[in-house]
Amino acid sequence: MQVNCIAPDKDLGRALCIITGASKGFGRTIAKEISLLLKPRSVLVLAARSCDKLRELQADLTSSDVGKAGLVTRCVVADLATQEGVESVVRAAKEFSIEDMDHLILFNNSGSLGDVSCYTQSFTNMAEVDSYLSFNVSSALCLTARLLQAFPRQHGLRRCVVNVSSLCALQPFPSWVLYCTGKAAREMMFRVLAEEEPDVRVLNYAPGPLDTDMQVVARGSTADPEIRMSFLSMHSQGQLLTCEESCAKLMKVLLEDGYPSGAHLDFYDL
Amino acid sequence: MQVNCIAPDKDLGRALCIITGASKGFGRTIAKEISLLLKPRSVLVLAARSCDKLRELQADLTSSDVGKAGLVTRCVVADLATQEGVESVVRAAKEFSIEDMDHLILFNNSGSLGDVSCYTQSFTNMAEVDSYLSFNVSSALCLTARLLQAFPRQHGLRRCVVNVSSLCALQPFPSWVLYCTGKAAREMMFRVLAEEEPDVRVLNYAPGPLDTDMQVVARGSTADPEIRMSFLSMHSQGQLLTCEESCAKLMKVLLEDGYPSGAHLDFYDL
Repeated sequence: MQVNCIAPDKDLGRALCIITGASKGFGRTIAKEISLLLKPRSVLVLAARSCDKLRELQADLTSSDVGKAGLVTRCVVADLATQEGVESVVRAAKEFSIEDMDHLILFNNSGSLGDVSCYTQSFTNMAEVDSYLSFNVSSALCLTARLLQAFPRQHGLRRCVVNVSSLCALQPFPSWVLYCTGKAAREMMFRVLAEEEPDVRVLNYAPGPLDTDMQVVARGSTADPEIRMSFLSMHSQGQLLTCEESCAKLMKVLLEDGYPSGAHLDFYDL
Repeated sequence: MQVNCIAPDKDLGRALCIITGASKGFGRTIAKEISLLLKPRSVLVLAARSCDKLRELQADLTSSDVGKAGLVTRCVVADLATQEGVESVVRAAKEFSIEDMDHLILFNNSGSLGDVSCYTQSFTNMAEVDSYLSFNVSSALCLTARLLQAFPRQHGLRRCVVNVSSLCALQPFPSWVLYCTGKAAREMMFRVLAEEEPDVRVLNYAPGPLDTDMQVVARGSTADPEIRMSFLSMHSQGQLLTCEESCAKLMKVLLEDGYPSGAHLDFYDL
């Protein structure tokens, strides 16, 4: 008799986790928090552009209890705005055998805010928009596709893809046209994936307003005065979330594993 | 006393209309139908890649009653996947004076289906995805921005931007990841514009399943068997819409002018 069929798992099993944008902010927190939920001999593939910050994170993880207990971390210094960057993450992940792994988890976390200092009417340069969409949309699509190909369906392997989404995927914010457009595009892309691949667990998680570098730019540069004031006010009134509190909810959702695949879950709805 | 304050206008006034993807399908129908609703000395700027088909449409319009009554048509052979293509449309529009015009109307109609013969997992080539998003998203954003800059707010001028959207902007369709992603991105982009520019009327119109070349590809190539069957069945049972019936509803919406700016209106909801 299986007695724990309703209670959430206490861990995510032995997993191969790939995290993009892992050097700082929410990505870095995901790496730290998930490391506590993985069985020994799990692997974290940490991708970002900044080599120094990745190495620092790796050192932290390696010297931690979970590192000593056998968590393997692998850094990939990569520009995910390029095909070569995507390929280098896939190569790094493929160096590890998925045999005996319980779980493959990809966190599509990396992303950029784009220029929020002006309104839609100012975006007249196609190269700028193309570049934004390439990094924020095409890259996430191609990395996800490559990894699902590299680690196909197999008995006993759970495969999970998390998209770090935003309220901006659902609601338009004045002077945030690139960010809203990119997040809406990503969200739909992962909803299509969820429809297509019922054996892949797909989650769009909106982490809420996080106290990160992106928020500094948001409250400093947002052209729309109301939106800018709301960010300033959230900051001054201590309403921004720490990456840790938001990540804790994400981890709980992943452990419980009860969400409908493709769903959009927001920190504030959980 | 104004007696016709509720009844819709009978025409769209003297307008400068820009229509992308005007050489065939829904774009061509928009050109023909709107020409009947414009006051004399209105201008249609018709953009597409195919020179021959544009000239044919221009000849039809010029020889029609409205052409004889003074409708000006201008063809722009342009590849809207490029900045130069976008600029050439703007240049053509700017040759006409907006003085004495009642209305500026841009129809962002051009778009492509993308490869529907495979699933999300197959999209591993960033250049392919980049190119799709550039033509379907960046181009519409930059053209809209350039035209709104070129024809700024002025007393007595209504400015209206129509995005030819789709149910796919809202709902994920298996094996249609590029199309769904592009349409979701476009829809959000125009929702942001609507929030930012209250004096610009912004409409996301989903025309329904049209009996066009795109549907031929859809029912011939869609990888997902259920979606493909549903297109085949719509075709064989005569449930596809003609461009004319869908366009008639769009024109009615534009004449009534009562939609909330930024709204998504679907043929079947009207």
